[in-house]
Amino acid sequence: MNTIFAAMTRQELIHQIHNKRSFLCVGLDPELSKIPTHLHSAPDPVLEFCKSIIDATRDLCVAYKPNTAFFEQFGSAGWSTLEQVIDHIGSDHFIIADAKRGDIGNTSTMYAKAFFESLKADAVTVAPYMGKDSVDPFLQFDGKWAVVLALTSNSGSNDFQRKHLSGSNQELFENVLKTVSAWGTIDNTMYVVGATHPELFKRVRAIVPDHFLLVPGVGAQGGSLSAVAVSGMNADVGLLVNSSRQILYASSGLDFMEKAHKEAEKLRDEMAVLIENIR
Amino acid sequence: MNTIFAAMTRQELIHQIHNKRSFLCVGLDPELSKIPTHLHSAPDPVLEFCKSIIDATRDLCVAYKPNTAFFEQFGSAGWSTLEQVIDHIGSDHFIIADAKRGDIGNTSTMYAKAFFESLKADAVTVAPYMGKDSVDPFLQFDGKWAVVLALTSNSGSNDFQRKHLSGSNQELFENVLKTVSAWGTIDNTMYVVGATHPELFKRVRAIVPDHFLLVPGVGAQGGSLSAVAVSGMNADVGLLVNSSRQILYASSGLDFMEKAHKEAEKLRDEMAVLIENIR
Repeated sequence: MNTIFAAMTRQELIHQIHNKRSFLCVGLDPELSKIPTHLHSAPDPVLEFCKSIIDATRDLCVAYKPNTAFFEQFGSAGWSTLEQVIDHIGSDHFIIADAKRGDIGNTSTMYAKAFFESLKADAVTVAPYMGKDSVDPFLQFDGKWAVVLALTSNSGSNDFQRKHLSGSNQELFENVLKTVSAWGTIDNTMYVVGATHPELFKRVRAIVPDHFLLVPGVGAQGGSLSAVAVSGMNADVGLLVNSSRQILYASSGLDFMEKAHKEAEKLRDEMAVLIENIR
Repeated sequence: MNTIFAAMTRQELIHQIHNKRSFLCVGLDPELSKIPTHLHSAPDPVLEFCKSIIDATRDLCVAYKPNTAFFEQFGSAGWSTLEQVIDHIGSDHFIIADAKRGDIGNTSTMYAKAFFESLKADAVTVAPYMGKDSVDPFLQFDGKWAVVLALTSNSGSNDFQRKHLSGSNQELFENVLKTVSAWGTIDNTMYVVGATHPELFKRVRAIVPDHFLLVPGVGAQGGSLSAVAVSGMNADVGLLVNSSRQILYASSGLDFMEKAHKEAEKLRDEMAVLIENIR
């Protein structure tokens, strides 16, 4: 085990969730064309925008999920912006680098170093296609997390993830859940399950009752928070529900921080009731 | 279609292969701990090392495959190194950003911009787990390529890629080949097939007879060039065989460029005979 940086444990995350009455994760997918025009004159508009969104939502969410693609499009300058965004978040929130990485062992180790040591994220999203030796390296960092893709929120999730496997009653995503849960623990592994498949959360929970699930797809992609909560929550809440565009682009005017706060608050208020109900 | 930068077409790649009598791809996976010690005093040892390896092998290979993880581990500084490495390669070689990306549509578009526009690579490796809308954006850039993971070289390839699918005689990797080949063409799509599975190349070629295959796993991982060639080559050669560690770390002394050249030359000489045989 590599113990290098402080990271957020499962217990601390659960504590934060109850404390803030929120399991909201704010996705940071900054698109230059959608950023309020008055920020375009800043030296780094993307950084300015992300910092403002963070400041506007800090008290309402427990996690941030910067999407690496939106920074990488700007090359090394974008990667530098990403570093500053993560610095700005600080250590009170669970930070998920949404990077969808995964490669042979020695390469996954390098990716783990990139996100856990260099970038100081708590977690990174991992694509499971390459199997055990591509996921394992992300589990070797004490207090850090792999968030493994199981059933994603997009239409393409039907292409491979929902294929039935011979000699079992499982679809591929179920086999991924079952197989990967033998590699990691509930303290270092979460799964991505899209809100666009509310009818499948029962099958997910039958395999991984205790794991945290990272749930994208609420809002712009059409998923419903309450539908997810009904069959996705467990006694520890067990969900981080992500919202990106609905919050980031609530307004493109001078009031974008206020509107972002309001959208996050709406979600937090819904979540507070849902959390109250499981107590 | 976004037409922005010159890129290497299939015809040009085939021309280069015949011209150099080589289908060698040199993988750039620079590990600081393995780089010759006399380079450690350079301002950027990784850059110096990569430039030296490129200069030592330029005449013997048709492609370079920088592995993004080995640069990302150094954060924005590493990404800047990667940009300079790609600049140093220039436009006479096919450049594959080995990044294993793939995400929902708008995010994959950002990754495509990162690698095709910002980084100016010809190709990027793509993980297929998230399906059509995660692969499609990489196919929208004129003259650029998606190199999709089908059957990887690592032991973890058995975990999911080799699962049998119900109601078909296909394993998952075969279904990926068949499905993805309906999305792309032989002019914008290649597949990763590991040299560690020589017995499966016939099944791969039954599904994608005409596509180029990117073949890792020769050398350190135990795959054999001749075994791959027997059932993997087609009339256009159709293979890019990658070698990384065998060339990069042939020597850790002052003679590392000479030794890297020699290792690449050995592979080129084998390849020249194999190419001659299909004429």
